[in-house]
Amino acid sequence: MSQQRSEETRAHILDAALRRFAIAGYNAASVDDICEEAGVSKGAFYHHFPSKQSIFIALLEGWLSTIDGSLDAMRKQTVPETFVHMTEIFPAIFAAADERLPMFLEFMIQASRNEDIWKATIAPYRHYREHFAQLISDGIAEGSLKPVDPAVAAEVILSLALGLFLQGVLDPHGEDWEHIAHESMQVLMNGLAK
Amino acid sequence: MSQQRSEETRAHILDAALRRFAIAGYNAASVDDICEEAGVSKGAFYHHFPSKQSIFIALLEGWLSTIDGSLDAMRKQTVPETFVHMTEIFPAIFAAADERLPMFLEFMIQASRNEDIWKATIAPYRHYREHFAQLISDGIAEGSLKPVDPAVAAEVILSLALGLFLQGVLDPHGEDWEHIAHESMQVLMNGLAK
Repeated sequence: MSQQRSEETRAHILDAALRRFAIAGYNAASVDDICEEAGVSKGAFYHHFPSKQSIFIALLEGWLSTIDGSLDAMRKQTVPETFVHMTEIFPAIFAAADERLPMFLEFMIQASRNEDIWKATIAPYRHYREHFAQLISDGIAEGSLKPVDPAVAAEVILSLALGLFLQGVLDPHGEDWEHIAHESMQVLMNGLAK
Repeated sequence: MSQQRSEETRAHILDAALRRFAIAGYNAASVDDICEEAGVSKGAFYHHFPSKQSIFIALLEGWLSTIDGSLDAMRKQTVPETFVHMTEIFPAIFAAADERLPMFLEFMIQASRNEDIWKATIAPYRHYREHFAQLISDGIAEGSLKPVDPAVAAEVILSLALGLFLQGVLDPHGEDWEHIAHESMQVLMNGLAK
């Protein structure tokens, strides 16, 4: 099997797993179901993924690295502008989360019972906390932000984003979440800006 | 059956359901299991609760009304002080959430598939949003807060609280969450205070 062909098969299995998890749930979807959906043999599945759990972690990491790529492209002239600008990717995150939500919640249940899954679930929060803390430090260095504790300010921003995300996926039509995300970040930046 | 005896039985069934949901999960725990755990007949169960779903909603509402009671007792001299003071109930909310988390997540999965459960899950967010917006309005009226949009400021606070809560239950030993909650609210209030 060529390298390209192998990568196509891997992507194909990931797509099939995402669909099966979204429809049937993580627990109910079996490796057999995923193979049938993808039209691949169990041998092909296990060539790419050692377990159903590993495919779930790959889906989670794939989604998060898409967000990472978007965040990196968001750098504006000043740090406060960068943070406010970041809220523009909220609609895309919501759209992607919508079909993943039940699966994501099931995954958190698994996480509360399994150390490996727990680590994979926790890792992104720590990753974003560090990413935001670095940006805050840059803002203090450039003189656009007050000399706050970067770790605390990063935690405020991450918590705000997570809380908006949770409400947005639970109650998508309850509010204009993109507008609220934008205004909320603006309020926060007013408090942090020099 | 006396009124008092009846209320004791109801509380007893709720406790038993909470234990069964926490151990076996919401889906796996049957009404039979709950009756066995509580040592009551199915007749007694259905006298108090029409369904497993209704007992779940009663547990959720009971937990939220405990939080409400704590929040009402938190009023300090000024609104910014009140919000910072509120973060002191975080440890108690975490402690109560710890055993309820897998159950709560399962409930959100159900919510994404069932209109009644969805409404019960969404209601508290709207309730807290209104509660916080009223406090912000009071703060503007008393002159301690800038004339911000109370709805937006309330959303920032609610999202911050939810995001901290979500991280706290997922990663209880990752950070000193009470300290972070306190510092985060202080940063936010610095931005909102006049």
